Amino acid sequence: MNKQFVYLFSEGSAKMRNTLGGKGANLAEMTRLNLPVPQGFIVSTDACNDYYDNDGKMSDDIISQVNKNMKSLEKITRKNFNSNDNPLLVSVRSGARASMPGMMDTVLNLGLNDEVAAAMAKTNARLAYDSYRRLIQMFADVAQGVDKKHFDVVIDTIVDDQKVETDHDLSVEALQEVVLRYKEVYQREVGEQFPQDPQVQLLQSIEAVFKSWENPRAKYYRKLNSIPDSWGTAVTIQEMVFGNMGEGCATGVAFSRNPATGTKELYGEFLFDAQGEDVVAGTHTPLPISKLKEEMPDQYNEFLEIAELLEKHYHDMQDMEFTIENYKLYILQTRSGKRTAQAAVKIANDLFKEGVISKQEAIDSLDLDIIDGLLHPQFQLEALAKVEPIASGLPASPGAASGLIVFDAKKAVEYSEKGRPIILVRMETSPEDIEGMHLSSGILTARGGMTSHAAVVARGMGKSCIVGSTDLRVYDDYVMIKDRKFFEGDQISIDGGTGFVYEGQIETQSVAIGEDFDNILQWSDEIADLKVYTNADSSAEIQMALDFGAKGVGLVRTEHMFFEADRIRAVREMILSTNQMQREVALSKILPIQRDDFEKIFRTVRELPVTIRYLDPPLHEFMPTTTQDIEELADVMGMSVHEIRDTIRSLHEFNPMMGHRGCRLAITYPEIALMQTQAIIEAAINVTKELGGVVLQPEIMIPLVGDVEEFNYLARQVKTLANELIEKANVDVHYTVGTMIELPRACILADEIAKEADFFSFGTNDLTQMTYGFSRDDAGGFLKSYYDLNIYAKDPFSTLDTKGVGELIKIAINKARAIKPDLKIGICGEHGGDPASIAFFKEVGMNYVSCSPFRVPIARISLARDK
Amino acid sequence: MNKQFVYLFSEGSAKMRNTLGGKGANLAEMTRLNLPVPQGFIVSTDACNDYYDNDGKMSDDIISQVNKNMKSLEKITRKNFNSNDNPLLVSVRSGARASMPGMMDTVLNLGLNDEVAAAMAKTNARLAYDSYRRLIQMFADVAQGVDKKHFDVVIDTIVDDQKVETDHDLSVEALQEVVLRYKEVYQREVGEQFPQDPQVQLLQSIEAVFKSWENPRAKYYRKLNSIPDSWGTAVTIQEMVFGNMGEGCATGVAFSRNPATGTKELYGEFLFDAQGEDVVAGTHTPLPISKLKEEMPDQYNEFLEIAELLEKHYHDMQDMEFTIENYKLYILQTRSGKRTAQAAVKIANDLFKEGVISKQEAIDSLDLDIIDGLLHPQFQLEALAKVEPIASGLPASPGAASGLIVFDAKKAVEYSEKGRPIILVRMETSPEDIEGMHLSSGILTARGGMTSHAAVVARGMGKSCIVGSTDLRVYDDYVMIKDRKFFEGDQISIDGGTGFVYEGQIETQSVAIGEDFDNILQWSDEIADLKVYTNADSSAEIQMALDFGAKGVGLVRTEHMFFEADRIRAVREMILSTNQMQREVALSKILPIQRDDFEKIFRTVRELPVTIRYLDPPLHEFMPTTTQDIEELADVMGMSVHEIRDTIRSLHEFNPMMGHRGCRLAITYPEIALMQTQAIIEAAINVTKELGGVVLQPEIMIPLVGDVEEFNYLARQVKTLANELIEKANVDVHYTVGTMIELPRACILADEIAKEADFFSFGTNDLTQMTYGFSRDDAGGFLKSYYDLNIYAKDPFSTLDTKGVGELIKIAINKARAIKPDLKIGICGEHGGDPASIAFFKEVGMNYVSCSPFRVPIARISLARDK
Repeated sequence: MNKQFVYLFSEGSAKMRNTLGGKGANLAEMTRLNLPVPQGFIVSTDACNDYYDNDGKMSDDIISQVNKNMKSLEKITRKNFNSNDNPLLVSVRSGARASMPGMMDTVLNLGLNDEVAAAMAKTNARLAYDSYRRLIQMFADVAQGVDKKHFDVVIDTIVDDQKVETDHDLSVEALQEVVLRYKEVYQREVGEQFPQDPQVQLLQSIEAVFKSWENPRAKYYRKLNSIPDSWGTAVTIQEMVFGNMGEGCATGVAFSRNPATGTKELYGEFLFDAQGEDVVAGTHTPLPISKLKEEMPDQYNEFLEIAELLEKHYHDMQDMEFTIENYKLYILQTRSGKRTAQAAVKIANDLFKEGVISKQEAIDSLDLDIIDGLLHPQFQLEALAKVEPIASGLPASPGAASGLIVFDAKKAVEYSEKGRPIILVRMETSPEDIEGMHLSSGILTARGGMTSHAAVVARGMGKSCIVGSTDLRVYDDYVMIKDRKFFEGDQISIDGGTGFVYEGQIETQSVAIGEDFDNILQWSDEIADLKVYTNADSSAEIQMALDFGAKGVGLVRTEHMFFEADRIRAVREMILSTNQMQREVALSKILPIQRDDFEKIFRTVRELPVTIRYLDPPLHEFMPTTTQDIEELADVMGMSVHEIRDTIRSLHEFNPMMGHRGCRLAITYPEIALMQTQAIIEAAINVTKELGGVVLQPEIMIPLVGDVEEFNYLARQVKTLANELIEKANVDVHYTVGTMIELPRACILADEIAKEADFFSFGTNDLTQMTYGFSRDDAGGFLKSYYDLNIYAKDPFSTLDTKGVGELIKIAINKARAIKPDLKIGICGEHGGDPASIAFFKEVGMNYVSCSPFRVPIARISLARDK
Repeated sequence: MNKQFVYLFSEGSAKMRNTLGGKGANLAEMTRLNLPVPQGFIVSTDACNDYYDNDGKMSDDIISQVNKNMKSLEKITRKNFNSNDNPLLVSVRSGARASMPGMMDTVLNLGLNDEVAAAMAKTNARLAYDSYRRLIQMFADVAQGVDKKHFDVVIDTIVDDQKVETDHDLSVEALQEVVLRYKEVYQREVGEQFPQDPQVQLLQSIEAVFKSWENPRAKYYRKLNSIPDSWGTAVTIQEMVFGNMGEGCATGVAFSRNPATGTKELYGEFLFDAQGEDVVAGTHTPLPISKLKEEMPDQYNEFLEIAELLEKHYHDMQDMEFTIENYKLYILQTRSGKRTAQAAVKIANDLFKEGVISKQEAIDSLDLDIIDGLLHPQFQLEALAKVEPIASGLPASPGAASGLIVFDAKKAVEYSEKGRPIILVRMETSPEDIEGMHLSSGILTARGGMTSHAAVVARGMGKSCIVGSTDLRVYDDYVMIKDRKFFEGDQISIDGGTGFVYEGQIETQSVAIGEDFDNILQWSDEIADLKVYTNADSSAEIQMALDFGAKGVGLVRTEHMFFEADRIRAVREMILSTNQMQREVALSKILPIQRDDFEKIFRTVRELPVTIRYLDPPLHEFMPTTTQDIEELADVMGMSVHEIRDTIRSLHEFNPMMGHRGCRLAITYPEIALMQTQAIIEAAINVTKELGGVVLQPEIMIPLVGDVEEFNYLARQVKTLANELIEKANVDVHYTVGTMIELPRACILADEIAKEADFFSFGTNDLTQMTYGFSRDDAGGFLKSYYDLNIYAKDPFSTLDTKGVGELIKIAINKARAIKPDLKIGICGEHGGDPASIAFFKEVGMNYVSCSPFRVPIARISLARDK
């Protein structure tokens, strides 16, 4: 028996989505539910794959199955395809497994030709010629790639000639003229006549849908969304029903709930006496669905019942197309409806309360990219509608902010002491700017990518941030935005979610996390196996993350503590030391400040685990860069400018990312690691005594380990000192010593390292850099070309490259767990807050993901998702 | 039955080296050959491992086996251990599988105590007390770690008191005094009496040998030479024979051939009436072995026969220890002898011609580190003996050179036009210095490591080079070497093999490659499965490599072609272009020059494969750095200095190693890759026509690929253009398009890339950098600490890190060959010339290794080795 390539609606169901495509499967399902669906058949995705396997030829088998099913459809509809006697017209539409923009979509009224139109005209001439001209134009577009504009010229001319308002007002004679001229356009553009044989129209349309599977836009979309080429598309052939037959006819689209607010109400719009495309084309102004209730209450009520039935059946809010032909309601399509963040959360809650969906389904129903907006202030829509952006950049950290422009941290202090909100505008930021960033409402930079310093720090702080805005040139005391100068104190507004910059102030609104959203988060925690930790560097940030539901701290970057004004001098003194003794004197000044930082952190986290990473960046990052700052430092240190410049020069590295940093620093200057150990353990001892009965869990993390001997050398010294201090104090502190896995070599040798380390935390930022061999700071120069040329579909710094970097992570986890099955493993790179990456981390068996505080809710939901 | 831990010499053989250690196995073997060996027994390496498994305790079983064997030895020697009646004295010596410096070595005369010495004194009082005092000192050193100096003070005092020349002249009474005072020193330093029980002496000595297996020096040596800790050491206990019994006594060492020249002659030295340690201690001046022939011809002839027998038996030149006791010759030890490069090559040839060894054995007998010296000029030894180094640095490229100091390329041209040899002295070199390096006899830099630019390029050119000499401070027109100024034109000499810098001129000598060495190379080629290619950038270098026996070119770096004076201007013009058309105009100026370069290369390589890498470094490397050069360029280009500085600034990268380079350049500027394609293919066409009948094999290599789409995008364009040109010209050019595998991601995704690429060439320099996450230019800052702390044993840029980087290479090869079993795979990183790394490349199934011309002979031999 031959393989079945074509299915009648009545042969399918929603479960056959892979074979029938989304659209076809839903039509089949509605047929099974006895809903009023115009009947038809589906050419399956298998047929599409067969077509490509046959070098782009439709096999005789498929053609004969199409013909056979058309015969069946004739019987079902009691109409005749390719006949003047009660002619059967059909629509042809594509339908892949997943909704896919970029593919050929629809041909309506297929089956018409000169003769059939003339026959049909005997009953309804307007309908016949209006439908015919639409067919010619759509078929020309879809099957032959003829631009719509060639036809628009024709119809616009005739509308003008006839002195009518729109094509809707054309007379039958004029429509006949349109058909004639459309056929001429077709002949001119295609080089052959419009096919009069409906059979030819049908097969060419099916083939056109198949071909559109491989067009560049569709291919790119698949790459972007990891949709395999092998899925193929199905083609749905459905009996035409006409909303444009005059009185008692209408066509429209509607949602089963309000997609903006989530309110339970039928929400949509329609047109009387029109075909579907008119509703969406914008050429006619549609009516709200409530109008249908007034004018055709029976049909409205029937539609409402169907909408409720479909929602229950599909466990989701539906987006439906309908047509009313001579007072008879038909459903042409149904699918899950798009919605706003607020609506999504409300609908998920309501459907759960109504008993329609489970908690898991509620969680899975959310679009997390949209949900993210819930967590940040937004511009008021009415205010936003009145302004135009003056520049744009990369949307690095969501949220809206308005404030006065400042160009450096000092001014940021001045303005914020006066209680003025500020926007920090910089060429790019560096660790020196941390304090200024802290005080600002938003950050705007001319350079840098989505994982530049500004972007990473801003996300960590939950601040609005736009980076890499090429519309900006930043000077010392003004900024050129395109060709206009803006000075310090000028007011601007930025939207870190869209990347747009506006002049002046725009009102913002906070979208509070309501009870509905809290429910979703609670349910997520019930379901998820993994925990969500946070990356945060201060007790304030940690508190914020705990409020968002973090269950621990996966990354405290101690270097940020080194930059604040009260300690940077001692840090520089340490760097300028020429021997170990001088260095220890400088470190002894930093010790009490760090201890104080850690005490605050321990008081906040209490018994939750907190992973503290030892000093990571190369020392030159702590040195001043401007002449003025160097002179000041020379003055303070009693050294010559020359000596300080010499030190700065000696610290220079060709590739600082691959230089003297991470554990390499601690190996050459163990006294730094020992000072940090002392600060952590003494702080832990003090806070333990202060709180009483709480056992702290500091996790000491040694960064950038590539060889187990590096880890051993440092862990030995850290443990010796820590144990000594704890023993002397005689308190219970559960500290562990682990490492970041962020070098390819550490992945390959993870078994050796796992033998010695108490925990692993994957640093996916550096791991991505080293695996690809490019730095995130420098990749901007060519990544744009990569996206333009479709070489890369996604930014590997935003969504984990599971094929390459992910494979190294898998190798590492497998090797490590083979040695130590219960090793605690987490991830503290930027990817820890990205839903797609989180799905991977779950799959490979990590224990937790750690992300910036504002991403914690997103991560909690991501971990509970079953898709 | 219990495990055997102790073996009599008569129970062992040379095959039992793993159990008995090298020394013990050879003594057993000589016993089997019925040679005059003082008998004894061996405590095996299994016993050593048992000792460590038992937490450093010798088991009763081992002790009882030692005692049992001592009984057997008493029977064999007819002497008695721990007895006044014909006392048996023994030596105790360590002996691991491989010769291992850093381990405890020897205790002689063990078995003596006050009583036994007194008894022995009745026959020979000098011998008795001389032997006793030696025992006390050696035992104290070996078993208790007492510094020899404590004993030296005593004996020096007594020698002075007695007014004699040396300890050899001390009277019996004085020797008794020495023994007494030595025992006091022992008691003082150890805190207990010197053990009078020979049994205790024996067991403590054995234990001391076991312990020395774990001392830091031994551990470090093992790490350096990849010797597993699990091997353990054996201990040899052997009857003492005495070369110091007076008349008819002697002791010495000798080689079976001259270790300096390789001549077939007994070569060594000895002392009459002495113990072995005296010969090597330097306190007495030994006599040449020819003297023995005169004085004791019978013993000499017996020794000569034994030496010949051992050579034949062991298939190698032997280094032997002997003692003559009362005119009776004993052999105490034999092992393979160390030799000079010349001697090694001659001996290997002679032994083959004598039918003693096979070609494979001849090849395996060479120490390649030493052989490398054969290929470069050396300072004359007599001249070198008269001078002291004034500075030192890293020996980056071997060979000796003398010349006048110059500080830049321009001066290099001036001096060399006058025919003066020069040494280029720089802070560090950059691609701009290529021409100056070419003209110099040697290169000396103050900065950089073994794989810095200067080092890599110098090795490629076969020039003497010292880098990273911290004794230097280089200024514009002079250099401070330590505290002395040297100016341009001053004469210095450098030895790139030792890293020493000398003042003035030192005569050099070339060590020509002789027939013997040629034979070795021929035999190597017969045996090796892999081929040796070369990394070379000009036809001159390629010709040199072909003369050294290269079978192809594995890497032509085209960027070096961009730096020469006649083309750098067009290159800069290309970089300063603001649009594609300007860029193409500039490229069209470079095209004929590149084509000419390639024509020369093709004429040289003819039908051999030649792999040409497309432009790799970031563009900023081609821009001028000094103000003067920038001004000149501005002038030439008709641009402002400001504009040129702007371009330079825009090209700046934070981490150029991880920036816009390699295939990323070609993707953003495909016109560069197309120009290079045109130059290569047109050159190939022209040379094919010119030569007639020769089919050229250019292999086009796209660098730094991390994703197959990068490769596809470029390969498509390259092939389209190449095919078009070839078709038009209608000649036969066999070009292929492949890629460098030098990023961890390319290794992980090697299967995808292998599907598309015609060949793989591993770039192990970059792969090492990315896998470890440090750049070779910046690693100097911490790698020294790593070696000092024993964190790393070897420089991963010199010898491939097989555990980490090697594992990635294995993953890549396995994945690639699974897709394309006959994929051509090679290596063109610096490791291609390193014997240890070559062994790995052979093991993982590469097709060829490619190295700089001067390393080609070493690589050829390495590939043939069976060890």
